[in-house]
Amino acid sequence: MSAAPDVLSRGASRPRSARGYASGKEDYLRRLRKVEGQVRGLQKMIEADAWCPDVVIQVASATRALQEVAVGLLNDHLRHCVIAAAADCPADGDERLAEVAATIRQVIRL
Amino acid sequence: MSAAPDVLSRGASRPRSARGYASGKEDYLRRLRKVEGQVRGLQKMIEADAWCPDVVIQVASATRALQEVAVGLLNDHLRHCVIAAAADCPADGDERLAEVAATIRQVIRL
Amino acid sequence: MSAAPDVLSRGASRPRSARGYASGKEDYLRRLRKVEGQVRGLQKMIEADAWCPDVVIQVASATRALQEVAVGLLNDHLRHCVIAAAADCPADGDERLAEVAATIRQVIRL
Amino acid sequence: MSAAPDVLSRGASRPRSARGYASGKEDYLRRLRKVEGQVRGLQKMIEADAWCPDVVIQVASATRALQEVAVGLLNDHLRHCVIAAAADCPADGDERLAEVAATIRQVIRL
Repeated sequence: MSAAPDVLSRGASRPRSARGYASGKEDYLRRLRKVEGQVRGLQKMIEADAWCPDVVIQVASATRALQEVAVGLLNDHLRHCVIAAAADCPADGDERLAEVAATIRQVIRL
Repeated sequence: MSAAPDVLSRGASRPRSARGYASGKEDYLRRLRKVEGQVRGLQKMIEADAWCPDVVIQVASATRALQEVAVGLLNDHLRHCVIAAAADCPADGDERLAEVAATIRQVIRL
Repeated sequence: MSAAPDVLSRGASRPRSARGYASGKEDYLRRLRKVEGQVRGLQKMIEADAWCPDVVIQVASATRALQEVAVGLLNDHLRHCVIAAAADCPADGDERLAEVAATIRQVIRL
Repeated sequence: MSAAPDVLSRGASRPRSARGYASGKEDYLRRLRKVEGQVRGLQKMIEADAWCPDVVIQVASATRALQEVAVGLLNDHLRHCVIAAAADCPADGDERLAEVAATIRQVIRL
């Protein structure tokens, strides 16, 4: 399953060349490839009938790595996109902050 | 990155043929393959400079799918391994419950 | 606000004298009184215009203390109520495990 | 237990009259009083030997209410303190964002 095309293009109307995570892009890709490997490792564990709690511990580890990515991206976004938008135009800053708050709620699952 | 060999073999001394998730194995593999696809989709989003909050929402979705797997596995384990062990030998049941409690703490991150 | 009467009586049809947390009752009450104190401390911080991130850190601390209580209660319940029920009658054990699984999902917020 | 004096005064060197949550202070106090009532209700449930999963569900409800407070405070803080600091002085904005990121990590428990 890959990201749906509409998700890839949803931000298309936003300024393109300056994603907040641009400078850390390679690092995020490296971390996500590592999570992908963990998830493949989980499949091997299930196939090999690994001990259930051991599988769950590895699931928790992959979950934590994903949440580290989420917090890093949010932080980059605040630093590079929200503050810049607020400096240009307070109303834009407000709108972006509301989007960030909604996103934090998804991460915390409220 | 695949699961380390010692993780795959750690439960080797435990009864092998009766993992609690045995009957749901195919379902867990299917769900983990889907998460693997989501994580690959996240890499595509980053490569395509997707809008940061959109990436974070997808990260949260993959995280939730992983935690659903963790809760399912814990439940299967309680049903098939812990209760059976307790019926055979209360001390074994206690030991396995302590392991489950430690695992739940990892999932909740206490 | 106190617990609604129907919540207090909901388990009335279940065996009364043997709550799983009976032996740790005083400890749970002590921990909950401490959380109550933390929540009152939070009100004082807000009234005193405390620095926002400091308040949030204290909120996170109270949250963690509550989740420790939840995991402790679940563990006691598994040990004393679920396993005993399963030993008496497998169908009862299954029903209680399903209730535990639903409860874990609430705690993890799935 | 009340908030330690050093926590109440820690932000003393920061501008005092303009906490980000000032306009919502009454609302936060109201929500925290409600959580305090929930925690007292939990003690009554334990004293009354309430059914364990029912107690856990109420613990999860209080936890969620606290995390709603945390996310609200973070959002107010970003809107009123971080963006204003960044507009005045980019270095201050960076410092405050780093503090927010550390706080989010505590809330998510990374």
